Amino acid sequence: LNYFLGIDPGLSEVGFGIVKLEKNEPFFVDCGIIKTTPALPFGERLSLIKKDLKEILSLHSFAAVGIEELFFVKNITNGIKVAHARGVIFEELSSRGLAIHEFKPTEVKANICGNGHADKLQVQIMVQKLLHLNQLPKPHDAADALAIAILTSRVHKL
Amino acid sequence: LNYFLGIDPGLSEVGFGIVKLEKNEPFFVDCGIIKTTPALPFGERLSLIKKDLKEILSLHSFAAVGIEELFFVKNITNGIKVAHARGVIFEELSSRGLAIHEFKPTEVKANICGNGHADKLQVQIMVQKLLHLNQLPKPHDAADALAIAILTSRVHKL
Repeated sequence: LNYFLGIDPGLSEVGFGIVKLEKNEPFFVDCGIIKTTPALPFGERLSLIKKDLKEILSLHSFAAVGIEELFFVKNITNGIKVAHARGVIFEELSSRGLAIHEFKPTEVKANICGNGHADKLQVQIMVQKLLHLNQLPKPHDAADALAIAILTSRVHKL
Repeated sequence: LNYFLGIDPGLSEVGFGIVKLEKNEPFFVDCGIIKTTPALPFGERLSLIKKDLKEILSLHSFAAVGIEELFFVKNITNGIKVAHARGVIFEELSSRGLAIHEFKPTEVKANICGNGHADKLQVQIMVQKLLHLNQLPKPHDAADALAIAILTSRVHKL
């Protein structure tokens, strides 16, 4: 039980990142995004996210999962939709009895980059450094999810 | 396939109402609320809503389900939570291949009461009248859900 999953919730793109903790240091396992196209009916997009999440959860026995909280500063209409998707994700995690840690975006950036207002490139650079990757983790949502996974591995008490 | 389900989404209370269409007229079948206490962890509240919804959906073969859209005029923080619950509900409905109709609250009131800004008591009175009930349907969320079920039965093309 030394695997940690990070999730950057969204509707068009859900970022996920997996790290493994060895001797208290996080190592890269996997990352990517679940994509859903606006061409699909809303309910099918939610089901697609659920299906792909189930697949990711079946890959490892996770010690804990981290997921970002939502902030609707710019676009409330889109934020409501993302909250629907996050609800589906949250219910799936909870129903499996997984330990869930929630973080504000600024909390993740402050912990990983030392600056709560770090930009997306800075997050990628720090995740690359912390996980000793040969290149920048991409896309942004997957890098954010890895940052969340790293933070989760730090705060979770085994 | 002449049963129609109406859902008034929420987190603490999800209203549900079931009507049956006979000779193009709606008849009362059932109504009530799914309650979740804030004392439970958020994920468990979402799972409880899902579990109770599944039970309601198992009662009849529904021709269609109506569900209200969300409006966050007053409290965005609470609205985000309700959107999580609505996401869980929406995904469950969609995954069963049910026809889903979405209505704005003003649309429901305009159709049932002839006034998009009717208050909760007016909705109860009109639902009582339309369904020939001996008393006012209670609580408010269940009455709203019956109004949504009636409207769904009107707009759904069989």
